[in-house]
Amino acid sequence: MKTTTEYLWFNTKQRQEFIRITDQVAAVVAKSGVQEGMALVSAMHITAAVYVNDWEDGLIHDFQAWLEQLAPSGRDYRHHQTGEDNADAHLKRTLMGHQVIVPITAGKLDLGPWEQVFYAEFDGRRRKRVIVKVMGE
Amino acid sequence: MKTTTEYLWFNTKQRQEFIRITDQVAAVVAKSGVQEGMALVSAMHITAAVYVNDWEDGLIHDFQAWLEQLAPSGRDYRHHQTGEDNADAHLKRTLMGHQVIVPITAGKLDLGPWEQVFYAEFDGRRRKRVIVKVMGE
Amino acid sequence: MKTTTEYLWFNTKQRQEFIRITDQVAAVVAKSGVQEGMALVSAMHITAAVYVNDWEDGLIHDFQAWLEQLAPSGRDYRHHQTGEDNADAHLKRTLMGHQVIVPITAGKLDLGPWEQVFYAEFDGRRRKRVIVKVMGE
Repeated sequence: MKTTTEYLWFNTKQRQEFIRITDQVAAVVAKSGVQEGMALVSAMHITAAVYVNDWEDGLIHDFQAWLEQLAPSGRDYRHHQTGEDNADAHLKRTLMGHQVIVPITAGKLDLGPWEQVFYAEFDGRRRKRVIVKVMGE
Repeated sequence: MKTTTEYLWFNTKQRQEFIRITDQVAAVVAKSGVQEGMALVSAMHITAAVYVNDWEDGLIHDFQAWLEQLAPSGRDYRHHQTGEDNADAHLKRTLMGHQVIVPITAGKLDLGPWEQVFYAEFDGRRRKRVIVKVMGE
Repeated sequence: MKTTTEYLWFNTKQRQEFIRITDQVAAVVAKSGVQEGMALVSAMHITAAVYVNDWEDGLIHDFQAWLEQLAPSGRDYRHHQTGEDNADAHLKRTLMGHQVIVPITAGKLDLGPWEQVFYAEFDGRRRKRVIVKVMGE
């Protein structure tokens, strides 16, 4: 069994930003030499998400508006008594999910026609990491 | 390490349909010969979900009503400017999750007493796939 | 490839309880001897969740209040016609997610600075299990 581990770093200009990372994940898989296996892609910070969905700006806008509705910012969250102001970012990332497993078949990401891997930042403007861990043969 | 990959195809009659797939996943695991490992079950289309929960029609009705409330259809989503009309399906599948890992112990799916694997279709009436990828020994 | 499987048992005093389990997961990984791989941590009951987020009481309070708002208890759910009264627990656990994969690097859980693994019980006061399955080398 082979394993390869890499860390993708992000430092977004805006507090909230959605970034397509399919190509970076594919590059780690290519480097690993794994032909059959899985790649775990997981946010290492608890106000960011990793998810799979469409690469279409309108839909990304819809996701953001929807998350703001279901997990609004600017509320009087208990977490803010610690001095933080990002409780909504914890909730939003929970709705989107913080990790995905991408299957690897014949040395490639085995994704459907519209599947793209995204990093969703909800409390950016600082350096944050995503782990990509490949396991297989 | 052994790996086995199969694709389950679905073409639902209704736009939204929830289908129990535990037995199909178990069949792939049996065929793989893996005794200890994991089975990834992942929707390859971005308007469908794979989740684990109860095989009880009332609860499935509750899930559907609840998803319609949290991610309603028929709204003026930005995604629809592309000609699509299924933005709510992308949101609903995000709430349910698009993949699960089923542990395999002693050659069987290691599920709790009420755990069942479901495929949840939110934009059906066309051929769509789920990947089942088994890894282990 | 090595695999190790253990089951964590819970029997909470309250119906809803959030319990940090990072140390128990780390103990299973240490015992497994796996240096590079992944640990699946998955609730085996369908009214409980496993998630990764902050170990901060205020935020846990926020999660609970937010889940109650999005998936309220005490409603006239169809599932309750079976004699159950816990449909909201099924919905809440779906929002939080029922499993996580923790990467293992150099023999340790490869977690970001604030990542903690939690068990979230939404229908407790009875014995329930979480599987921890470690795979790697």
